[in-house]
This record gives sequence, structure tokens and C-alpha cells, in this order.
Amino acid sequence: MPYELYYWPSIQGRGEFIRLALEEAGADYLDVARLPEEDGMGLPALLRHLDGADGRPPFAPPFLKTGDLLIGQSANILLFLGARLGLAPRAEAGRLWVHQLQLTLADWLGEVHDTHHPVSSDLYYEDQRLEATRRAQDFTGRRLAQFLVYCERVLSANPRGWLAGSRPTYADLSLFQMIEGLRYAFPLAMTRLERGCPRLIELRDKVARRPNIARYLASKRRLPFSEEDIFRRYPELDLGVKPRTGRFPAPLSRPSSARSIRAA
Amino acid sequence: MPYELYYWPSIQGRGEFIRLALEEAGADYLDVARLPEEDGMGLPALLRHLDGADGRPPFAPPFLKTGDLLIGQSANILLFLGARLGLAPRAEAGRLWVHQLQLTLADWLGEVHDTHHPVSSDLYYEDQRLEATRRAQDFTGRRLAQFLVYCERVLSANPRGWLAGSRPTYADLSLFQMIEGLRYAFPLAMTRLERGCPRLIELRDKVARRPNIARYLASKRRLPFSEEDIFRRYPELDLGVKPRTGRFPAPLSRPSSARSIRAA
Repeated sequence: MPYELYYWPSIQGRGEFIRLALEEAGADYLDVARLPEEDGMGLPALLRHLDGADGRPPFAPPFLKTGDLLIGQSANILLFLGARLGLAPRAEAGRLWVHQLQLTLADWLGEVHDTHHPVSSDLYYEDQRLEATRRAQDFTGRRLAQFLVYCERVLSANPRGWLAGSRPTYADLSLFQMIEGLRYAFPLAMTRLERGCPRLIELRDKVARRPNIARYLASKRRLPFSEEDIFRRYPELDLGVKPRTGRFPAPLSRPSSARSIRAA
Repeated sequence: MPYELYYWPSIQGRGEFIRLALEEAGADYLDVARLPEEDGMGLPALLRHLDGADGRPPFAPPFLKTGDLLIGQSANILLFLGARLGLAPRAEAGRLWVHQLQLTLADWLGEVHDTHHPVSSDLYYEDQRLEATRRAQDFTGRRLAQFLVYCERVLSANPRGWLAGSRPTYADLSLFQMIEGLRYAFPLAMTRLERGCPRLIELRDKVARRPNIARYLASKRRLPFSEEDIFRRYPELDLGVKPRTGRFPAPLSRPSSARSIRAA
């Protein structure tokens, strides 16, 4: 029985993190919403699960069906698949560590999304462009570097060049996707910042060279990046240099406790 | 050996979701950053782990230390504790379902945070008030109801009145905290919306009556809500009625595919 992946059919989005894991493992899977409606697949099949009478509905795609299990939330799906596909350490400590990293990548991805949708996911980018400019300024000028440096630091602690142990995990594949997406959306900022993250770029290259991943990336199954996706290239949001005004960050003389407690 | 919880000492924040699980289970734990520096505890102990040479540092608090394990990311900590403290189903399907719900609550919490910090977690609320007003209008007028209705729907599928099975899980405790925080931050919006969610309110009341939770809430260990926390009461962000302008949501005549793909 193949795994059934349910995700919006025309974008990489959050579904891509699941696709990369399935592809790396050579797993048998159906990308249900991209298959013909005549065969009971397509978008209607996805919507049936979202709107259906199932007592355990997912809040949003992606979700994965296998046997009687319907699993939602990207990181949760990867937690499940990681153990089955050999993409996670077997010992509890390693499993928790990889999942922790995946959740941090999920936070990072959410912040990428909000650079172009800081006001509402139900409004068009053009209707929140002013707010997006400010948010993206903070992202490219501060937050992006924090995440990159964190990942570089984690990688520097493991001489094997992976996030955990001596083999790639689902979190390594997801980190590859983050770099690809960030390069697409913020080419100027990434050019500036990648210089400080050699291990991260090496990991990205190693993932791209994995035979199954290379085959997938060259196939039609890999959808292109676009401006309807999470990673979007809007040149006005890509600041290659740090902002020079005094507004970012807030003056340090004010107590840091009044600021916001973000993440994790 | 008591569990060591590390979180900012002066707010509930994301640490509260861990505290509620430890308290419900009557677990032996130290809230390290709230203990005296003279004893090697306090904020310096927290910062040592964040800045330390440990090869597996957390990106941000909260994190939990037990034996050799240092576990970061709230939902990951609860995944670990749930199994040990009897706050999660034993079977895999139930464990994944509860974790999926917890991750959805985490997404919801992130959106609450961004109502007052839509531009940058490094700027004060006062420096992003205009953007916050717009974001909060979308949250109270649309997004909040989506999450509440989803939870009510999940609860309606289980006659036992819990999110999964016949006993409270860590996700039930977290849902209690969400309701408490939302009532604090958005009293007008919640008054309007709670009418449609009787099962959710019943769950909130049942959790509040659990002996260990009731004792905890009445103790000094329970910190008060405040405007330095995730849930903040800014009356200008609490819209008790749906916005009447034509700007929210975007006109339906435009293709939905151009909108943002949000969450999960």
C-alpha cells in the first residue's frame, strides 16, 4: 500500500518537506491532489478529508494517510516517517533532537511566510505590502542570520557533516529545502549571509547530490518555486545589506524584558 | 532526580504549557530560572545552556533537562513528558494525534503573539502598533474563530469530553491555557465567540477543577498574565464584533490560489 500524501497540487509549500523524505527513501507514495479526479483523487479527495465527518480531521494540509492513520502537521508526519524510512536516529535522544530541529525549521518557515503576509493570510500581498516591507527588513536584517548561525553552529558540533549522526535525517532534507527556498526568495540577503555558513552550504550540496534527491529535483514531480508559494521572490523584500536607520533593532537602552519573547 | 525546566522567569509564556503538564502529573521539577543564582540557578543557568558549548543547544527557551537529555521546543518537550507522565495515549495513533493537536495549538499561539508583534519581536509594541491593529483585526474577525471551531469540532467527536480518549492529555492542558490566555487578551472577542463553543468551555472548566491544577493556579508558582507576555491585553486590539469594512477578508471574486497558504 503506497503512502497517500495530501497537499495543495500547484505549490511546493509545506508538502515539499514530506515529498523530500519520501523521495530520498524511495518510498512508494501517491501525491493525491495532483492525480486525476476521475480516479477519485485530485483536490476533491483532499477537501473530503478536511471537511469530512472524520473525528480526527487535520486543521490544514499537508496530511498523510497510511492504513487507518491520518496524520497531520508536517513535523508530526516526518516524526512518523522518519522512524519508518530510516531517516531518523533510532535512539530516543537522537529522535527527540532531530524533531526539535525540525520544529525550529518550522518556526523559521513560518517567519518566511510572514515576510509577505504579515497582516493576514486571507489578503493578497499587494494589500499588505507596506507592512511586508517592514517585516522583511527585520527578517533579512536580523532574524534570518539568527537561524542560519544557529544551524551552522549545530553542524559545527558534528564532524560527520549532518545534523545528527553519520547519515542524513528528515531534518537535513528540510534544511536543504530551507536553503533552496531562501536562495530563491532572498538572493541578495543570502549571498551576503552564506559566506558565514560554509557547513550549511556543504550540507545543502551533499543533499542535492543524493541520487534519489537529484533524480527528484530533475523530474516533473518537483514543482517550481513561485509567487503563490511560501518562498516568494519580491525584490522589494530582499535587502542585501543591513538596514542603516536607527529603527532596527530597538534602542538597547530600553529594558529587554519589555520586548517580545519569540519562538520555541 | 527532579526535571529541570528552563524558561524566562517573569512570564508564563511558552513555559506555561510545560508547567501545566508537570503540575497536573504532580511531577518533581525545578523551575530553574526562578531559583536563586547563589544556588547555581537563576537566569545565568538558563543562558549558560543557550550560549554554551553543548553540541545540541536549544534555539530558545523553554527547554527541559533530565539526566543527559536536554530537550527543546515546547511540543517536543510535551511529546517526551506525555509518555512519561501518563498525559498521552500509549498507542501510536493516539500519540500522533495528540502531538498533531499540540502543533496546531502552537501555530495558534504564534498567531496570538503576532497580533501585537507583526513586524518584529525585537521592536516594542508601540513601534508596530499600526500594523498590530490590522493584524489583530484579522485575528479576532476571522482566524480566532477558525481555531475555536476546529477545537469544538474535535471535541464533539469524542463523547468523553477530552481531545483524545477518556483522560486529559497534555494537549487538553494546553487548550485550557489557550482559552485562559485568549480570555485575558481578547475579552470582547471571546465573549462573542465562546457561545458557539460549549464543549471547549466545558473542557476548560474541567481542567481548572483538576485538584493539582486548581492548587497550582492558586499558588505563587502561577505567574500572572501581563503585557510582557504572549497573551497581552491591549484594548485597541480586541474587537468584539466582526469588522464592517470591505477590506477583511479580500474580495471573494479573486482567485483563492493567489492567497497565502497558511499553517500546518
